Amino acid sequence: MRDDNCIFCKIAAGEIPSSTLYEDDMFRVILDLGPANPGHALILPKEHFKDVTELDEKYAAKILPLAAKIGTAQRKALGADGFNVVQNNGTAAGQTVFHFHVHIIPRYDSEAPMVAWNPGKYAEGEMEQTAEKIRKEI
Amino acid sequence: MRDDNCIFCKIAAGEIPSSTLYEDDMFRVILDLGPANPGHALILPKEHFKDVTELDEKYAAKILPLAAKIGTAQRKALGADGFNVVQNNGTAAGQTVFHFHVHIIPRYDSEAPMVAWNPGKYAEGEMEQTAEKIRKEI
Repeated sequence: MRDDNCIFCKIAAGEIPSSTLYEDDMFRVILDLGPANPGHALILPKEHFKDVTELDEKYAAKILPLAAKIGTAQRKALGADGFNVVQNNGTAAGQTVFHFHVHIIPRYDSEAPMVAWNPGKYAEGEMEQTAEKIRKEI
Repeated sequence: MRDDNCIFCKIAAGEIPSSTLYEDDMFRVILDLGPANPGHALILPKEHFKDVTELDEKYAAKILPLAAKIGTAQRKALGADGFNVVQNNGTAAGQTVFHFHVHIIPRYDSEAPMVAWNPGKYAEGEMEQTAEKIRKEI
């Protein structure tokens, strides 16, 4: 299924040009236009899924092996020391295009240490209460 | 395979206590002790893999469906508006425990907008040069 109003559907289909790193029947991997670092890549499925909760299992199975392939190529090609795999769901999580995608971001030891969040602390008892609430919904 | 010196192997095996949200034959999902937000969860495979480049495909296939299950439960249990799925490879990428794991972080519209990176720009021609370098290593 595709969504004719979705820019990532059009990019994945090759109807809008992109710097494509890799393509197969199910995915196109492109460079992000606003990269965290040069080489920052996006994995786009060729079918339209809003986010990870909609993603078909056939696609889901192939994402992390593909992310490993791209991250390894970033290391070799760019001399990157590591890479982040990031996938955002919902505006609150920083998702801006509502077509499932995965960021692969090359990282370097020479950068300031990457801190994606400030670790918080649970009050006494709060952690187990939180766990219990979530367990009930799984 | 397990690594007897690995704390996440011991937690995954239940030898070190954790706030466990979910467990099956292949995975344990726990609460992170230093959460970005309460309910911040970690997916741990029960086998030892250093990072995504080592991850067995049998495990890789199940990670994103499991992340979707946990993120959906965080939404229902905690009223979260979205969630991030984050997986770091290498010290440069913020990885601190060298046993593959995936962060599932609940996010709220009431938070400051989540900005995980400042978008950069490519100089003229740089984007296509970068793409070409990476393509050669895939």
